[in-house]
Amino acid sequence: MKQISGGVTAPKGFKAWGVHCGVKANKQDKKDLAIILSEQECTAAATYTMNRVKAAPIYITMNHLEDGTAWGVVANSGNANACCPQSHENAELMSEYAAKATGRSPSDFVVASTGVIGQTINISAIERGMPEAAKGLSAGPEGSDAAARAIMTTDTCKKELALTCTVGGKTVTLGAIAKGSGMIHPNMGTMLCFITTDCAITQKMLSEALQETVPKTFNRVTVDGDTSTNDMCVVLANGMAENPLIEWKDDSYTVFQKALRQLCEYLARCIAGDGEGASRLITCTVHAARSEESAERLAKAVVGSPLVKAAMFGTDANWGRVLCAMGYSKAPFRPEYVDVKFASAVGEVLVCRQGMGVDFDEEMAKSILSQDEVIIDICLHEGEHEATCWGCDLTYDYVKINGDYRT
Amino acid sequence: MKQISGGVTAPKGFKAWGVHCGVKANKQDKKDLAIILSEQECTAAATYTMNRVKAAPIYITMNHLEDGTAWGVVANSGNANACCPQSHENAELMSEYAAKATGRSPSDFVVASTGVIGQTINISAIERGMPEAAKGLSAGPEGSDAAARAIMTTDTCKKELALTCTVGGKTVTLGAIAKGSGMIHPNMGTMLCFITTDCAITQKMLSEALQETVPKTFNRVTVDGDTSTNDMCVVLANGMAENPLIEWKDDSYTVFQKALRQLCEYLARCIAGDGEGASRLITCTVHAARSEESAERLAKAVVGSPLVKAAMFGTDANWGRVLCAMGYSKAPFRPEYVDVKFASAVGEVLVCRQGMGVDFDEEMAKSILSQDEVIIDICLHEGEHEATCWGCDLTYDYVKINGDYRT
Repeated sequence: MKQISGGVTAPKGFKAWGVHCGVKANKQDKKDLAIILSEQECTAAATYTMNRVKAAPIYITMNHLEDGTAWGVVANSGNANACCPQSHENAELMSEYAAKATGRSPSDFVVASTGVIGQTINISAIERGMPEAAKGLSAGPEGSDAAARAIMTTDTCKKELALTCTVGGKTVTLGAIAKGSGMIHPNMGTMLCFITTDCAITQKMLSEALQETVPKTFNRVTVDGDTSTNDMCVVLANGMAENPLIEWKDDSYTVFQKALRQLCEYLARCIAGDGEGASRLITCTVHAARSEESAERLAKAVVGSPLVKAAMFGTDANWGRVLCAMGYSKAPFRPEYVDVKFASAVGEVLVCRQGMGVDFDEEMAKSILSQDEVIIDICLHEGEHEATCWGCDLTYDYVKINGDYRT
Repeated sequence: MKQISGGVTAPKGFKAWGVHCGVKANKQDKKDLAIILSEQECTAAATYTMNRVKAAPIYITMNHLEDGTAWGVVANSGNANACCPQSHENAELMSEYAAKATGRSPSDFVVASTGVIGQTINISAIERGMPEAAKGLSAGPEGSDAAARAIMTTDTCKKELALTCTVGGKTVTLGAIAKGSGMIHPNMGTMLCFITTDCAITQKMLSEALQETVPKTFNRVTVDGDTSTNDMCVVLANGMAENPLIEWKDDSYTVFQKALRQLCEYLARCIAGDGEGASRLITCTVHAARSEESAERLAKAVVGSPLVKAAMFGTDANWGRVLCAMGYSKAPFRPEYVDVKFASAVGEVLVCRQGMGVDFDEEMAKSILSQDEVIIDICLHEGEHEATCWGCDLTYDYVKINGDYRT
């Protein structure tokens, strides 16, 4: 597996672009409309938010993907197109405008939105901006870059990756762009993530690969415990790599699925580390658990705890909060077996052994916790399973960003 | 029902006191050791934290209350006596010192602790301070005041209440002190709350009354979603009001239970409003729900959402986040039926009708949201049930307080 540049335009036959059309009314310098388009029809698979309140684009996309195929994605930032009049009509209109500008049909498009909930989207801005977005469509890395930027809201950095793997003697490329910073606690679906690949793979296998991957990557991220109304992760596969079609869970499937997982894990980490106001990425790994499910619950409770998050911001090795969070996670474990270590690029320190505090060097701990990525390493001494979840610290800036998001 | 002064010493036959003994080592002006004592044996009932990691005093208290009786409470702040060597021995020692200082036996005492997790408690300080605490025991309001202050950690105000009701022609008094500010997301048990009453009531009925009350009061509070390792709510009833013994769920039971609920609800609101760093109390009531359980889940998701909490801090009428939180609560409801109002002492404003935004006066909304208590009023238009939950806003100070709690 090899990491390359180019994001969603790295796989053969995909173009992308992003423009400012005016949904973000007062921010001329911020792009807000993205298109991704394939030269050939793609098999498509998606996961969606499990929030009972779903934004209109979720329903429209579900509908458009009913036949398991798509040609592209149209997405805007600045408005979630949720809980407002005309939301369904406007989501349909977005795909119609995209179809018109690209010579395709509306149902060829995945539709996605992200931004404020409850305000009617400026659909005229999207109509006006679409021809320019379509005209810009580029197969170069600048295409993916523009699209990645056009789906950002409070994100402080664009999130994209591409990598290659070998399937049946052919080089297969996967690319993706994603966005996500606040309202991040994905459940089945996730933030927005658009994945392209030139792999030849059946819809059934593509869907299975995605269903296997999302729960172990995006669904293991939490920023604030708020599951959004607009979460969506879509993968489009156009087959242009000309590898033998993946139809079964054979070795080729395994290679593809591993590449997909690496891609998604990278983006999941990007999203956690760019959590609203975050100053550092917090990775929690639970080892030697009875089951992967228990390990995941425990790790997620730890990275989700506001008290752990605030301690991480304060570089305070307050491991008691780690045990406390594990305790209310509802996962079974024996507190008296638990070891906890804090680790980062500069070293590691054991802070709790068999459920009890041990003497440790507070200065060393402080320096470990001051790094950009901190690992909370928990060993349960109970079994063979493990899981890793990602989050971020809780800072003044999270409160600032969210105290007045609408204005 | 009548509210009176005196807290836990208001019911007949109860004394209390609190001192600084040195558990809070560097804070000479902060009390850290409390005793409550009854003149007569009490029937006793309790609820405890459901956290799998339970502090030693929880186990010791469970053990001491096995016979359904107690004479008093000994509690410290400044150290949770959890996840550290000698925690069980030290919790037992606390009750032994209390017994020695008061001429009772160790198993007559409820033992409770609150404070930092994972550091061995300074048990010598407690041993040295106990005689002074016992000597101070007072039946006056100053006794309850001292005990209420001695269980505070990051609380900014003491929490106590007393009220009277008439049972079988006799005046029955209930009093309570409580503490709680952070790590607040009670589950079955709660923070620390010690309730005294002179009511004559069987242990079975006392326990039933408490089990009915806690889920509707303390368990409807959330500050940060962190369920503590030390939560405990205890009620001691010494029978000195000489009312006819409450043995069945008759009218007298109903009167007593209502008084108990009012007492607990008041303290639950105090705890929510004094949530760490909070600038305002957020009350969410969900009306016209299919079931009380659904209403409670929805209301709790709303007051627990970091994004709603941050918006409340910023006095931003961002009702989309309210719907979003309802959506991920896992409770069934129809988004397209939902009305949302924000209300406070200065008025109310409808912001969402049938699941969609309505035009509203932003200035008016801002002024409503600027008050000390804000109500989020949600109508589901689906049934007859309702529930209210309490929380607080998320402020810079929450992050500050918890960024470096241990030092």
